[in-house]
Amino acid sequence: MESTLPIFHHSLPLQLRFNDIDLLGHVNNSVYFSFYDLGKARYFEAVKAQNIDWKKADVVVANVNADFLSPIYSGEAIAVQTATVEIGNRSFKLLQQIINTETGQVKGICRTVMVGFDITAGTAAPISDDWKNALCRFEEKELRKNP
Amino acid sequence: MESTLPIFHHSLPLQLRFNDIDLLGHVNNSVYFSFYDLGKARYFEAVKAQNIDWKKADVVVANVNADFLSPIYSGEAIAVQTATVEIGNRSFKLLQQIINTETGQVKGICRTVMVGFDITAGTAAPISDDWKNALCRFEEKELRKNP
Amino acid sequence: MESTLPIFHHSLPLQLRFNDIDLLGHVNNSVYFSFYDLGKARYFEAVKAQNIDWKKADVVVANVNADFLSPIYSGEAIAVQTATVEIGNRSFKLLQQIINTETGQVKGICRTVMVGFDITAGTAAPISDDWKNALCRFEEKELRKNP
Amino acid sequence: MESTLPIFHHSLPLQLRFNDIDLLGHVNNSVYFSFYDLGKARYFEAVKAQNIDWKKADVVVANVNADFLSPIYSGEAIAVQTATVEIGNRSFKLLQQIINTETGQVKGICRTVMVGFDITAGTAAPISDDWKNALCRFEEKELRKNP
Repeated sequence: MESTLPIFHHSLPLQLRFNDIDLLGHVNNSVYFSFYDLGKARYFEAVKAQNIDWKKADVVVANVNADFLSPIYSGEAIAVQTATVEIGNRSFKLLQQIINTETGQVKGICRTVMVGFDITAGTAAPISDDWKNALCRFEEKELRKNP
Repeated sequence: MESTLPIFHHSLPLQLRFNDIDLLGHVNNSVYFSFYDLGKARYFEAVKAQNIDWKKADVVVANVNADFLSPIYSGEAIAVQTATVEIGNRSFKLLQQIINTETGQVKGICRTVMVGFDITAGTAAPISDDWKNALCRFEEKELRKNP
Repeated sequence: MESTLPIFHHSLPLQLRFNDIDLLGHVNNSVYFSFYDLGKARYFEAVKAQNIDWKKADVVVANVNADFLSPIYSGEAIAVQTATVEIGNRSFKLLQQIINTETGQVKGICRTVMVGFDITAGTAAPISDDWKNALCRFEEKELRKNP
Repeated sequence: MESTLPIFHHSLPLQLRFNDIDLLGHVNNSVYFSFYDLGKARYFEAVKAQNIDWKKADVVVANVNADFLSPIYSGEAIAVQTATVEIGNRSFKLLQQIINTETGQVKGICRTVMVGFDITAGTAAPISDDWKNALCRFEEKELRKNP
């Protein structure tokens, strides 16, 4: 993986719900993935500068790889940060982290592989130039492996 | 409300998930409503003897009234039971309870008012004869207030 | 029920999550109860002016009665408002509503009966004067039926 | 990773809930992790042949790595299968898959790294012999890298 974290241009404060907290007294592991998922959805809307009709999505999640670094307790101010770190022809990679926005403590890190998808054919497909350009524009750098 | 519980012709065993249990050590109150919701969906499929396309549903929930009687603990064998108890022209009433299937202890009771809905017009509508007949047939009794 | 809604002194903006939206394209009915639950928890913290150790809670939910008035769509700005409307010796009543904060549209209304609870004995108990006073102070009026 | 899937000695049928299905019409990605989590909890109880007090857990999740292979639709019969595939001194690795039990189709695969944890000190700790022995006994083979 990348040796240093990217600069995150997208951060979303998260609202904890009462039943996010499990019997161990901290946010249940499964809930982290709802947070990454929400951060990802809002990030894509910011990248595309528009609402996204998820029923017609041309990218889907292929792999999620998440490190659990520190528990999240009720009352903590947390946010999920999202960036694209690499773009290939048929996939691109997101990096996300959940942090305590007051202390900067990193609660978890998540790497997600998104793959192109042809929803009509139901098969894998290349990442469109539309996506590639929008992601690079948002991240303010060239992320294509073979541009 | 009815003075006695009906005979329930529909019972659905429920699988608890790890994060259903909140920091108090028992099933979070909000989760009860997922259970009633699931029991209701399966009940309607049984009543209609077919899968239901919920996107074209012609009945919607108008009111839910739930008593919390006893906590549910991890490891308990529980089920949700569902019956229709009254059918009007524009609504019908469900009664549900969540029980421990080993002890018979009632964990919660829920009354739901379903109203007819015209999904094209987006407005309230009468309950169809199709629904009325299917519900009475399933419950094996006349439930229409004005049959 | 009360003929007019109270003035709400407590309002909590709500963050929708991606998987709150069900296949019908709007917030699943079960999720409303997570919203009411979260609004209630924050309201009680505001009333008590402190964090609450829910494991030692001396009030518990006995009944929830919710009207579903209008669907909530992805992207709507919503909040849950909470007030206490009546205090008895062994219970008190909350009124909550979920609204679109931009249009004022009411999405749902929920009435909750909280009962006093002795967590050591595991039995019902009177509402403490501490709770009664804090609730009246927060609501800025006398809510006790028999003060 | 291992070139072939292990024989799974533990399989747990899963009950879908109505609000597991998101607006795309299949089980939301985040819900997969609740399934893996539940499979893991039940697996550990089977391995230890007893209920586990999760508040005193001496192993915690460090990393989750999940492939999404195929969508899960409402009405499918699914189960989560769990096995331990490697045991080190300070961690062990689980492999899980979610399958359609009628067709055998694999919906997702998840690798989880569990690390030893000293809950009193709040620090990493070796995996106890108790865990190592119980895991090998359950899996009916030697899984320790340096036995």
